[in-house]
Amino acid sequence: MKKFEEKTITSERIYEGKVINLKVDEVSLPNGHTSKRELVEHPGAVALIALTPEGKLILVEQYRKALERSIIEIPAGKIEKGEEPSYTAMRELEEETGYTAERLELIQSFSTSPGFADEIIHVYGAIGLKKSESGAILDEDEFVDLLEVTIEEAEQMMKDNRIFDAKTAFAVLWAKQHLVNENSQALRL
Amino acid sequence: MKKFEEKTITSERIYEGKVINLKVDEVSLPNGHTSKRELVEHPGAVALIALTPEGKLILVEQYRKALERSIIEIPAGKIEKGEEPSYTAMRELEEETGYTAERLELIQSFSTSPGFADEIIHVYGAIGLKKSESGAILDEDEFVDLLEVTIEEAEQMMKDNRIFDAKTAFAVLWAKQHLVNENSQALRL
Repeated sequence: MKKFEEKTITSERIYEGKVINLKVDEVSLPNGHTSKRELVEHPGAVALIALTPEGKLILVEQYRKALERSIIEIPAGKIEKGEEPSYTAMRELEEETGYTAERLELIQSFSTSPGFADEIIHVYGAIGLKKSESGAILDEDEFVDLLEVTIEEAEQMMKDNRIFDAKTAFAVLWAKQHLVNENSQALRL
Repeated sequence: MKKFEEKTITSERIYEGKVINLKVDEVSLPNGHTSKRELVEHPGAVALIALTPEGKLILVEQYRKALERSIIEIPAGKIEKGEEPSYTAMRELEEETGYTAERLELIQSFSTSPGFADEIIHVYGAIGLKKSESGAILDEDEFVDLLEVTIEEAEQMMKDNRIFDAKTAFAVLWAKQHLVNENSQALRL
């Protein structure tokens, strides 16, 4: 886990923001040379692979300023300070989709951009979905469309690049592999 | 593609670096409110799903300063200015692994962190791998270990979080689904 470790010599904080920070570290390489690393700090996030009782995958469409377009993603959200990731996941599921889950199971955690960012996403499978009485609860400045699609429709969205982010691409492949069978409404976890 | 568009009111450049830039945009939301977006610019990257003639997946282990640990990934690299992604992919395959490919096929492009970064990774499948005469050609400041593993070994590495990034998690699921059969050395593209 520490193979080829790069030791920090100096660390300069460039920016501290609402969501991300930026620092530039000078590091010593295994051969004694030095180099610079531009590093983004992010609080981490959760994402959810959630099938409705009808066996459809829940997706959300939203505008992503970084890409200057809207894309279709699995439900996700940033971890707030002090939150357990599983709590964040349950909260995001309810707020963003209007569904509650009997339980969540961690499927995989991964770094999104290990070359420059420390963001880690925890991907949960949501078991036993039910519509909540309140429905989705969005912030007044949050603009999100809810979609429920078959795995085949999600695969087509990947081909069309309407699904266009790594966590959702992973989720579509994972859901396809873990559907108990083609007519099933449940994931095999 | 422009649903819920956030129009730029002002854009402030905070940092211009070797690999990434940082800007903060003030945007107008669909309801007329304004908000800030902290955005990282990145040149984009390529990654490769490459099986050896023996049917093993080629992986590289390297230290990732952002995570303060080493992780195991599919071969990947940044797109240099003016490069076609497919050219970058062929170059990275040869330099990082010491294999050449008969041809590459684009499997999927995706954004890694749509919430704050414009980085897009193009994932290619490499067809017809052969060992090059020169072997891997690493920069003197590049420290990378080459691994060749079965899909089952790669799946275990995901469980152990030694494989710990989104593109490689996607690649392992994809390779498993597209092996022609369990004893095959080829991918079905």
